[in-house]
Amino acid sequence: MKPIGIFDSGIGGLTVARAVSEAIPGHPIVYFGDTAHLPYGEKSAELIQHYSVRIARELLDLGCGSLVVACNSASSNALDAIRETAGPGIPVIDVVTPAVNWVSSKYDEGTIGVIGTRATIASGWYQSLLTHAGLTAQAKATPLLASAIEEGFQHGRVSSALIEAYLGQGAFDSVKAIILGCTHYPLIANQIAAQLPSHIELVDSAHVVAHALKLAIQEQLANQISAPASSSSLSTQRFLVSDLTESFALGAQRFYGSPIALQERKLTTAQD
Amino acid sequence: MKPIGIFDSGIGGLTVARAVSEAIPGHPIVYFGDTAHLPYGEKSAELIQHYSVRIARELLDLGCGSLVVACNSASSNALDAIRETAGPGIPVIDVVTPAVNWVSSKYDEGTIGVIGTRATIASGWYQSLLTHAGLTAQAKATPLLASAIEEGFQHGRVSSALIEAYLGQGAFDSVKAIILGCTHYPLIANQIAAQLPSHIELVDSAHVVAHALKLAIQEQLANQISAPASSSSLSTQRFLVSDLTESFALGAQRFYGSPIALQERKLTTAQD
Repeated sequence: MKPIGIFDSGIGGLTVARAVSEAIPGHPIVYFGDTAHLPYGEKSAELIQHYSVRIARELLDLGCGSLVVACNSASSNALDAIRETAGPGIPVIDVVTPAVNWVSSKYDEGTIGVIGTRATIASGWYQSLLTHAGLTAQAKATPLLASAIEEGFQHGRVSSALIEAYLGQGAFDSVKAIILGCTHYPLIANQIAAQLPSHIELVDSAHVVAHALKLAIQEQLANQISAPASSSSLSTQRFLVSDLTESFALGAQRFYGSPIALQERKLTTAQD
Repeated sequence: MKPIGIFDSGIGGLTVARAVSEAIPGHPIVYFGDTAHLPYGEKSAELIQHYSVRIARELLDLGCGSLVVACNSASSNALDAIRETAGPGIPVIDVVTPAVNWVSSKYDEGTIGVIGTRATIASGWYQSLLTHAGLTAQAKATPLLASAIEEGFQHGRVSSALIEAYLGQGAFDSVKAIILGCTHYPLIANQIAAQLPSHIELVDSAHVVAHALKLAIQEQLANQISAPASSSSLSTQRFLVSDLTESFALGAQRFYGSPIALQERKLTTAQD
């Protein structure tokens, strides 16, 4: 079984890695967090493409047979470049399309909210896909939210003040659902829900992405998932970061949901 | 007159650039914000050194005759490497030493607080210099504060909640002064002061750094500052960033205090 390569600008994509490991138990995974260059959400599209392609190459060099772009900023700004790097034989799953597909399968009309990094929202890709599905998009960049969650501000005054600043004062009251367009946001989904009207559904893409990946692998590499779930699956999971600091090591468990060990792996070209 | 090269991981160091241009009017300045790689405050010492040395080289290539490391994370983690790159003929001014010198000239004893990024505090350099000066250091990393200010959260509930989380509940009540060990913090100095006991002095290093630079230049390059203040000084100032996005362009004025135009200058080696 070729490993599934999952990457993000940092450790937020571990929420997706967890969902994938639950959806396809026993399948080897290589996770790569580009902590040397995070956050992607504040960078230009060109630079996000440059970094994303390099990590895609790294994961392919490590033998991965499929790629999950577990970063909304990279999915929105670099997917074509990543697909080109991967070539036709490697399924590339992004986190945007499955979320929009899921929403459009549930809602025929109305306004859907999207929140994400500046790069994700500026790309306009969520908006374009939602519009194409006959829905109206209400998108807003909420750039400090991911950093706040990464710093552990999850259920107190800081995150509450941020949610109020970004989503409060009735700004989103007319939407049917809000897509949490950043892998960090699921960690404060409960608090967001509590500060919004109760009719608004929050859409966490991690699980729909994991489901989409499972379908893609079943379709293209059917024999690979026929292996039975293995109790030693953890030993076939590797979690790599391009710059390892103590705070990333400590934060990893919070995103993954259980203890994991990060290893530093410098990128093959100089980290400049 | 050779320009003064001033650099930071982003646009926060513009507070220092402004102070320098006020202290040494008419002197040409080249500012470099490494927006492609910010924030340095979350990176390892090794990576901060790598990025800092590259920017120092870039500024020397642009003809700068002195360097100001207007970033506390770089000053704390990469100063030796930057000095080695600059060589003996180029004065290199950091933002840590002048702040500690200023504090130790005013206080003979007692506890001095320091707040900064994770990389700044983890380096232990402020603490070491304060201890060497006979003072007791109380240091705390306040990592989300700089991002919040960069996002424009300056005088409302978000910054108030952060100040309370990091500095509240009497944690700093016994200090005589707190060094604002990050170039972003001066923008919320008033709010920090309002939430702390009134006896605590806040030390903004931008002005003491500008003064130290003026002395260094007077000492080593006396002829260079004998030129009269020029009303056309703005035309001799260049503000470069390694990745230009709209939000940096908009934010620059807030840090510099008046409108300036950022130009993108990719680093000479590939931005990887």
